[in-house]
Amino acid sequence: MKPISVWQDIQRIRAEAPLVHNITNYVVMNTTANALLAIGASPVMAHAIEEMAEMTGLAGSLVINIGTLSAPWVEAMLAAGKTARQRGIPVVLDPVGCGATQFRTTTAQKLIEAIKPVVIRGNASEIRALLHAGQATKGVDSLCTPDEVEEDARTLSRSAECVVVVSGAVDLIVAGDRVAKVANGHSMMTRVTGMGCTASAIAGAFVAINPSPFMAAVHAMATMGIAGEIAAERSKGPGSLQLNFLDILYGLQEQDLSQRLRVEAPDS
Amino acid sequence: MKPISVWQDIQRIRAEAPLVHNITNYVVMNTTANALLAIGASPVMAHAIEEMAEMTGLAGSLVINIGTLSAPWVEAMLAAGKTARQRGIPVVLDPVGCGATQFRTTTAQKLIEAIKPVVIRGNASEIRALLHAGQATKGVDSLCTPDEVEEDARTLSRSAECVVVVSGAVDLIVAGDRVAKVANGHSMMTRVTGMGCTASAIAGAFVAINPSPFMAAVHAMATMGIAGEIAAERSKGPGSLQLNFLDILYGLQEQDLSQRLRVEAPDS
Amino acid sequence: MKPISVWQDIQRIRAEAPLVHNITNYVVMNTTANALLAIGASPVMAHAIEEMAEMTGLAGSLVINIGTLSAPWVEAMLAAGKTARQRGIPVVLDPVGCGATQFRTTTAQKLIEAIKPVVIRGNASEIRALLHAGQATKGVDSLCTPDEVEEDARTLSRSAECVVVVSGAVDLIVAGDRVAKVANGHSMMTRVTGMGCTASAIAGAFVAINPSPFMAAVHAMATMGIAGEIAAERSKGPGSLQLNFLDILYGLQEQDLSQRLRVEAPDS
Repeated sequence: MKPISVWQDIQRIRAEAPLVHNITNYVVMNTTANALLAIGASPVMAHAIEEMAEMTGLAGSLVINIGTLSAPWVEAMLAAGKTARQRGIPVVLDPVGCGATQFRTTTAQKLIEAIKPVVIRGNASEIRALLHAGQATKGVDSLCTPDEVEEDARTLSRSAECVVVVSGAVDLIVAGDRVAKVANGHSMMTRVTGMGCTASAIAGAFVAINPSPFMAAVHAMATMGIAGEIAAERSKGPGSLQLNFLDILYGLQEQDLSQRLRVEAPDS
Repeated sequence: MKPISVWQDIQRIRAEAPLVHNITNYVVMNTTANALLAIGASPVMAHAIEEMAEMTGLAGSLVINIGTLSAPWVEAMLAAGKTARQRGIPVVLDPVGCGATQFRTTTAQKLIEAIKPVVIRGNASEIRALLHAGQATKGVDSLCTPDEVEEDARTLSRSAECVVVVSGAVDLIVAGDRVAKVANGHSMMTRVTGMGCTASAIAGAFVAINPSPFMAAVHAMATMGIAGEIAAERSKGPGSLQLNFLDILYGLQEQDLSQRLRVEAPDS
Repeated sequence: MKPISVWQDIQRIRAEAPLVHNITNYVVMNTTANALLAIGASPVMAHAIEEMAEMTGLAGSLVINIGTLSAPWVEAMLAAGKTARQRGIPVVLDPVGCGATQFRTTTAQKLIEAIKPVVIRGNASEIRALLHAGQATKGVDSLCTPDEVEEDARTLSRSAECVVVVSGAVDLIVAGDRVAKVANGHSMMTRVTGMGCTASAIAGAFVAINPSPFMAAVHAMATMGIAGEIAAERSKGPGSLQLNFLDILYGLQEQDLSQRLRVEAPDS
């Protein structure tokens, strides 16, 4: 993949400032809103059932994140998703904690069925739980091999008819038979809460301006990884990383991409 | 306006640490609490209907922000506002997103009618939506001229019998025929989520200790703008800005005001 | 107390990454999750009644914080606490704002009765309110002497059959007749929202890996105080402090403890 293709999307986000409607968890509302602002998008956080159709209808994309879900919020997610589906507004789903509890797994499956997201982004454990529900899992499950993870992502991508992103040391982006791998990022990012949620929010900005959800997801993961690794290199710990990450996203330049991009993609 | 009049209010906030009761949105709870602590006030965030009368009754002011409103929270806002009105506790209203959805516009209008805030603070689009409800608006509307915005603010100020603050590159503070303009601030502040909400919270600290809502609002906007521009000058991006803003508010000195204050006010 | 005993617990947290289930307030969800990640634990924030038994069942400890309580959340706290009690999972309770409203005081007392926390952590005013409910209090009550505070902590410790931590310039940790005092910390910490809540969350990490709630609480308060004072010394204000605190927690070394630990404990 050429850095230019990522850069064009970033420039378009900065120029168009797409409205990204987030129904997300309490932990990351502030930090994901800030990440969207830093990259140039316009975030809105709203969950009242009374305004879902109107609010989603204004948006360029919808990001649904079940990190601190509860029954009334799931209703809002379904209502927003219905509007999005009717109007062709792309939806990113982050099935946070899927597999940890039955409520999360069932809710995520219901949302996929009802809303037809264009991108599902999670870690390996969450993606596996979406496929192997009913089997015992315990939150983070890192016992499976990279090949098993990729196979699961392919299976989910086909059954849910969407792009599946599996975050990890190397991010997988899978659309049926197409697979891209993004090797950017830094291990310190796992010590900042909600960096995965931020990746999903950022993916929301990219799907709002790029008609290919696959390319949008690859570009989003590359942008996250590059901004994260530059930030981590300048940081003594996760407190600084959180701050530097926003500064880097805000000031990201084409040469940052060309110097650092580590993406394997089918069309690169 | 002389810097000394802003400074006297800041010193009074630091000395008295007024309790500011916030019913606000999830995105900014942490950052507005931190801004209130940094300037010397005592924030409390609470929304349970069971404790509204008691909690508001303890406070020097009440800040109501509809950024992530939902029906149960609106009930709490009305209950808290009722107590505030009965006891003469000044209320600041931030009608976040007014105009974007009918639910927000209607709720904001209902709150103004029931609670009689002393200050309403929003951006031009939100203030216009309060007046021109029913007419089509789409979130941020920057198509109107500064004169139209000022006229709208005057009209709302008269009909709602309160001070109206319109945030922008130059903040307008309007109380009927009196108009003040604050030209402090920095464009990078718009890339940090909730800086407007923070302005409303800070206004809550000033109305708690200054009996004139007009002067309190002018002083609050000047303080926000000066702290924000000093912070922005020291920041590479919105991540640093958020941090530096709190440090600057905490350490703000009289000379920062005297060197930077750019306020046009009727009694200056 | 020897620094080594604190250090052993920190190393164990880093090695085992205990899952700490938090049902906490909106203001501090992000910052307490980040503090838990920085020290090496695995935070999860969840409050849906549908998943409480399962989620708490996965955890090494449960932290309940009533900072922005409401009726549905209290139900979740009781459900999570029931699971914790049945399975012997240690619970830390933070009775935020206890005494400010009847709802908070009653809820905190109900939680103590139903859940039997192993640690209750609050400020002097909150701890007093738990004992002297019905008597007039007004939020923060600093009129009582250190001896009165210690006597209250002993009384509550005996009646609630748990460790009571009273945060202040010198933290008290009381288990019946045993009293430890931690003199670490820095006054600037009081200008960052939720540092008390963070202390409770960090205590959750220590009770998950140390079978003695008393020693866990002493170690947690020492770690908080030392990380806080190092961070404050490097900070111009509360914005920097919040960031530096996370960096310091993340990189804390044994020599930081041996150089700074100021603890009086019965078995030191």
